[in-house]
Amino acid sequence: MERRHSIEVSVANERLGAGHPVRVQSMTDTITANIEATVRQILALAHEGSELVRLSVLDDEDAMAVPTIRAQLIDSGCHVPLVGDFHFNGHTLLKEHPSCAKALDKFRINPGNLGFGQSHDRNFASILEIAGKHDKAVRIGANWGSLNDPVRQRLLSEHADWPLEKVLEHAMIESTLESASFAINMGFPANKLVLSAKVSHVPSLLTIYRALAKKTDFALHLGLTEAGTGESAIIASTAAMSILLQEGIGDTLRVSITPPAHINLDEEDPRIQEVRVCQQILQANGLRTFVPTVRSCPGCGRTQREIHRSMVIQVSEFVASRALDWRMRFPGSETMVIAVMGCVVNGIKEAKHANVGISLPGRAGESPLPLVFSDGESYGVLQGENPGEQFTQFLENYIKSHFGSRVAK
Amino acid sequence: MERRHSIEVSVANERLGAGHPVRVQSMTDTITANIEATVRQILALAHEGSELVRLSVLDDEDAMAVPTIRAQLIDSGCHVPLVGDFHFNGHTLLKEHPSCAKALDKFRINPGNLGFGQSHDRNFASILEIAGKHDKAVRIGANWGSLNDPVRQRLLSEHADWPLEKVLEHAMIESTLESASFAINMGFPANKLVLSAKVSHVPSLLTIYRALAKKTDFALHLGLTEAGTGESAIIASTAAMSILLQEGIGDTLRVSITPPAHINLDEEDPRIQEVRVCQQILQANGLRTFVPTVRSCPGCGRTQREIHRSMVIQVSEFVASRALDWRMRFPGSETMVIAVMGCVVNGIKEAKHANVGISLPGRAGESPLPLVFSDGESYGVLQGENPGEQFTQFLENYIKSHFGSRVAK
Repeated sequence: MERRHSIEVSVANERLGAGHPVRVQSMTDTITANIEATVRQILALAHEGSELVRLSVLDDEDAMAVPTIRAQLIDSGCHVPLVGDFHFNGHTLLKEHPSCAKALDKFRINPGNLGFGQSHDRNFASILEIAGKHDKAVRIGANWGSLNDPVRQRLLSEHADWPLEKVLEHAMIESTLESASFAINMGFPANKLVLSAKVSHVPSLLTIYRALAKKTDFALHLGLTEAGTGESAIIASTAAMSILLQEGIGDTLRVSITPPAHINLDEEDPRIQEVRVCQQILQANGLRTFVPTVRSCPGCGRTQREIHRSMVIQVSEFVASRALDWRMRFPGSETMVIAVMGCVVNGIKEAKHANVGISLPGRAGESPLPLVFSDGESYGVLQGENPGEQFTQFLENYIKSHFGSRVAK
Repeated sequence: MERRHSIEVSVANERLGAGHPVRVQSMTDTITANIEATVRQILALAHEGSELVRLSVLDDEDAMAVPTIRAQLIDSGCHVPLVGDFHFNGHTLLKEHPSCAKALDKFRINPGNLGFGQSHDRNFASILEIAGKHDKAVRIGANWGSLNDPVRQRLLSEHADWPLEKVLEHAMIESTLESASFAINMGFPANKLVLSAKVSHVPSLLTIYRALAKKTDFALHLGLTEAGTGESAIIASTAAMSILLQEGIGDTLRVSITPPAHINLDEEDPRIQEVRVCQQILQANGLRTFVPTVRSCPGCGRTQREIHRSMVIQVSEFVASRALDWRMRFPGSETMVIAVMGCVVNGIKEAKHANVGISLPGRAGESPLPLVFSDGESYGVLQGENPGEQFTQFLENYIKSHFGSRVAK
């Protein structure tokens, strides 16, 4: 896969575009003015691996909270770049709260929510000026839910014969490009500009991003907007982003999924799902690695279903629970492949092909004990009552012995 | 998107390839000889929308059970085509159990598990002959976990300088093509032949299927093997299949994910997840529609988080629980788009763009009551205690009034 050439953009110390790894982003859903809740969520998102975190700045209280949020993050040792999300009143908030402008690393503005006519131009110019003065990056983030109306109206009248979907796609492309040109003509540096143009329909998203990729060199932020929740949201986001990423398009991404559960302070914040999904998308596409891959067959009439499923679930949950710690303490461990197979049909070769593999006894007269393989070599069988615990312990030891030395350096 | 040209294949009354809709497949994981459990699971998979169902036939007991399974399915009004999955002993089982061969609609054979040398050719020829005699389709289903060893050895020695991954990819392609040529040279009809070549690494899968698509006209069955379980399995399968489908490749697909839970006869069989994921992949890629799409924003600091999440979860669960009934009773309802938005930023336009949309009050001084839209027109606000129930009732009524008439025809 060849990555599209894009201009390098720096957001605080983070660099994106120009062949840098595709960056993972996320966004808070706390009330920004609730400093305690917002800091807690940003820490959770950053800890999970979000490389930029966006937060809404919708009024004076939010804007006044931002510098304190930044300070508390630094006190906690967290230096994740912060992106302020502005709609309707960004020009006013950023002007009246210079300490907010300074505390942020990037402003996300929406060309559809900057007002109309001369007012639009004045508001937009004012934000760019503040960004320029403080050396902040700007994302021009169009969304078809807030599409720039004049552009839409013009295209609707010029192309009355087009289907509405096509008009909207072209309006998204033109609105984004016009806004980018406006910024560049204002003297805003291209290496501080990121574009996005999100819609919620996968085929339209592909059309729009392919056009932006072809017509410009700007860094592109990928995302399917309003993807919904649960499996269907994950699938729609993965489909859209994987297709674009395989075409070399995309410098940073965020998945916009409604979290599956409410906040319970005793448990993991469900918002971190969006970070994990971004990471898994990049990993599936061979672009970056974050957590060891657990391969397992789906099971069939040849496998001992309950034994196999139990082992897959136990190993997967173990890897999920340990992955973050492993990634920090044992760099390189995230590239591992672990196979949990249910019978000999594909079990031995898939287990040998993995770093660590286990082939469980199937139903067709096979050896009654699980076979374990380590880097393609037979390690022997697991005897005893609790093969799941033995195998996860084996994994933990493998990681320590194979990746532990790097920590000492 | 232009679909690749492929030869039409008929499997019982189901047609695939040649521009037919991409067919959804699944596989049982019951012991086939356990007729009651197998029939129950096939009925569940078919009811969910699996258009072919595969089952393991690993010994005499399994083979003897197949005709009874078929008969009981017919008694239940289920005519889903059945695919027998054979490894090592398919030639023997099919020969010794002609009633099994007759009761199946397609045989899946694995070129790596047919024996070696003359024995391989004899076994393969024997299966093709039986398939031909009974007018059954055959899938040549290679899997890198059971890759044909002579082909692998030959490529390893011919290309000692290649990375192992590349050798395996080419061995998969060659093994599959050699098996297809063998079948065609034996006089087996091309319109009864389907090919697959599954691996568990997405970039390798793309290389292999792109080569098969380019070099042949045979119908192709897509699948990422041993994808694992949970989010990462769904994401890896979606990435792989979406990229290929967008390139026009693929006539039928199955996702191979380990079910997330054990069988509990009082609950939905977790195995049907693989059917739903296939459907969602096809739907996200704009190829087929199965269930109404629920669009919702992820929520942010502008939304009233708990209210918005509750509504999204309630609507999504309601749609999931009603979708199958709607699809059967109100054809066309599966094309619906429902939007559940958290504030005015994108809420009004996304809600208007949907068939039915609701825009909930955000935090920036917005109208305190949810706004409902129907086909782009304002329907008014939801008053009263239980907006979620009111909205789902509105949805149910919308579907009856807009798609109900088609039933009467």
